Amino acid sequence: MATALARPQLVSLAAGFTDNESLPLGEVRQLLRGILGSPQRGRAALQYGTTAGDPALRRLTSQRLHTLDGQPAARRAYSPDRLIITNGSQQMLYMVTEALCDPGDIVLVEDPSYFVYLGILQSHGIRARGIRMDKDGLDLGRLEAVLGSLKRSGELRRVKMLYLVSYYQNPTGRTTSCAKKTAALKMLRQFERAAGHPIYLLEDAAYRELRFGGQEIKSALALQGACDRVIYAGTYSKPFSTGARVGFGLLPEPVLSAVLRIKGNHDFGSSNLLQQLLARALASGLYEKHLAVLRRRYARKACLMRDAIKRHFPAEVEWWEPAGGLYFWARLPSRLKSGMSSKVFQAALKNNVFYVPGELCYADDPTRRKPNHEMRLSFGGATEANVRKGIARLGEVFRNCLRS
Amino acid sequence: MATALARPQLVSLAAGFTDNESLPLGEVRQLLRGILGSPQRGRAALQYGTTAGDPALRRLTSQRLHTLDGQPAARRAYSPDRLIITNGSQQMLYMVTEALCDPGDIVLVEDPSYFVYLGILQSHGIRARGIRMDKDGLDLGRLEAVLGSLKRSGELRRVKMLYLVSYYQNPTGRTTSCAKKTAALKMLRQFERAAGHPIYLLEDAAYRELRFGGQEIKSALALQGACDRVIYAGTYSKPFSTGARVGFGLLPEPVLSAVLRIKGNHDFGSSNLLQQLLARALASGLYEKHLAVLRRRYARKACLMRDAIKRHFPAEVEWWEPAGGLYFWARLPSRLKSGMSSKVFQAALKNNVFYVPGELCYADDPTRRKPNHEMRLSFGGATEANVRKGIARLGEVFRNCLRS
Repeated sequence: MATALARPQLVSLAAGFTDNESLPLGEVRQLLRGILGSPQRGRAALQYGTTAGDPALRRLTSQRLHTLDGQPAARRAYSPDRLIITNGSQQMLYMVTEALCDPGDIVLVEDPSYFVYLGILQSHGIRARGIRMDKDGLDLGRLEAVLGSLKRSGELRRVKMLYLVSYYQNPTGRTTSCAKKTAALKMLRQFERAAGHPIYLLEDAAYRELRFGGQEIKSALALQGACDRVIYAGTYSKPFSTGARVGFGLLPEPVLSAVLRIKGNHDFGSSNLLQQLLARALASGLYEKHLAVLRRRYARKACLMRDAIKRHFPAEVEWWEPAGGLYFWARLPSRLKSGMSSKVFQAALKNNVFYVPGELCYADDPTRRKPNHEMRLSFGGATEANVRKGIARLGEVFRNCLRS
Repeated sequence: MATALARPQLVSLAAGFTDNESLPLGEVRQLLRGILGSPQRGRAALQYGTTAGDPALRRLTSQRLHTLDGQPAARRAYSPDRLIITNGSQQMLYMVTEALCDPGDIVLVEDPSYFVYLGILQSHGIRARGIRMDKDGLDLGRLEAVLGSLKRSGELRRVKMLYLVSYYQNPTGRTTSCAKKTAALKMLRQFERAAGHPIYLLEDAAYRELRFGGQEIKSALALQGACDRVIYAGTYSKPFSTGARVGFGLLPEPVLSAVLRIKGNHDFGSSNLLQQLLARALASGLYEKHLAVLRRRYARKACLMRDAIKRHFPAEVEWWEPAGGLYFWARLPSRLKSGMSSKVFQAALKNNVFYVPGELCYADDPTRRKPNHEMRLSFGGATEANVRKGIARLGEVFRNCLRS
């Protein structure tokens, strides 16, 4: 960030920021007028709320989720009573991890995975084991192999969760199919007896609403047994306003009680003003309307990035196009490294463009060598002109580096 | 809360809520119009910010603090570079504790102290040792005795901090004099050699701005050596809007770096919209104007509570009047207990009034018996009529219980 601000020509394809022009300025103005225009509503918004969060927002969120999943309202997995409002979904991930894991415990993650989550694990002395991915998410054979090997080594009792960024994954843009979620949950249950405790499936659906291609895919909440084993983390940051930082989680007991206690200690409840803003956005339909605009906008930017990549990247560079979210993923021939100190990264910086080096997205997992020749390319924050420019500049860097 | 909502006649003298009527509705409306009326400002407010927080808000907060303390702007202790914006001061307390303490460590606290902080310590397996208080804060002789005894028992190396709620303390309403802060900081330094590491003074100034009597008292930031040993936690929740949940901290290295890392993992930065709201409130003078109104209002409510106490409480009940904040503290004759299951508490509930039992505010400290006949009485959330009614009802309960 500091680098980016200091050099105005520098194009960042790194930040997971949302598109600045698309932020719902008029909508927020209108919604806040509605809240603050009424003394009663206004004062409620400016006062403390409860630790779990605004009841209206929890009800509306629950409705939204069972509707997205095509499930009946009565299904317990979607109950507002299981829902907590958090400061972005980030706080939810943090609290769940704090609630479930001790130092030395193991969390299974996609390989690669969301780097801030890997940081949370690391900062708590929790070990991560990476599960290789296919085009449609987790490689199930690999999941079984890792669980089996942990069982044999007696470490299965340290495994607490499987963490999946299931929609348009950060960083690869890949989406986990519903069949894979079902199979993964089933597999976790099979290993539970040997573990001696539940192994939860933590589904991070941060990018779910930013779908611009493909079908709506059911969340793990729709699976059988979800009530007891699925932890769902969602957010209104990316699909509405990152500056509002409103996220949420749905959790099984006893994790819910533990997380509520932690939330009480963290901040005893998220800002009521922001929660009411989101509740009114949902209730009024403005959220849905804005989301449609956002999806078209990202669809367009993703097309732009794809076309630019096709045009500018040498054939030796592999890349993956997402059906939603904010990220493309690219892989250089293995002789070219992509890390911060690599020739490619430094040449890119010199050519006024930068990206997130793929190696930052891999857990410290001693059972495999960390891949170091990939990168995350975001079309979220950059303007359309900068997406084009950034990719053209990167293409030039790749060609030069491949030649030399 | 659930109890209170279910019984409308019930008067709560328990909640630390701020006065509902005093919330700055018009001010917030005006400030948000100013922010969201400009596309540039508005979009910045709806976008992610930085982990440390909005630079303007940090600068204005730094200014406010050195002005309150009557110190030159250039003093490093007040530098915006040492400042982090948090979700209320609660998150700041949580993160500092997470950064500095391991399970089994010891934090020295006032006896009694802020019960949510005691909960944070407990949830992390951190031990609290209570330091008895005088009228003007910490009993320094007691502080020295506790430090000395910990030194002798070899446990001084587990002592990481002294936690002081220095202004109109929650729960007693007492304020720590500047002389006592100076002496306490000096004493901590004397014991550092034996501890083998810094012992920080964590000053929780949550109620500082709600002063309605007495002189402005300098914070510990004004003390010599503050840069290296004082951690200051402040908030805009109580003096402006509890629904906005904007707090802050000033920290010495290396605690600052550790807390920034934790903040990055918690939520990578507080809501930008709320931060801009506070920054504009401060810059425009609306904050200061509102604060003056608030102080008059609380002064009036404190007077009301004092007069009602004088009129209704039997002479056997001791009580303390604050010069700011939200709380009176009262002590029953020791034969009358005040805890949740006590006759007094149950009779009060039946008589439609409740309070915070004092015993909740004492740490689990095996070196003394926990006092169980005190109570915190808040004039913050109740209306003026309810303050009168609540105290009258309590007085009746006390008289009945003393008689029987």
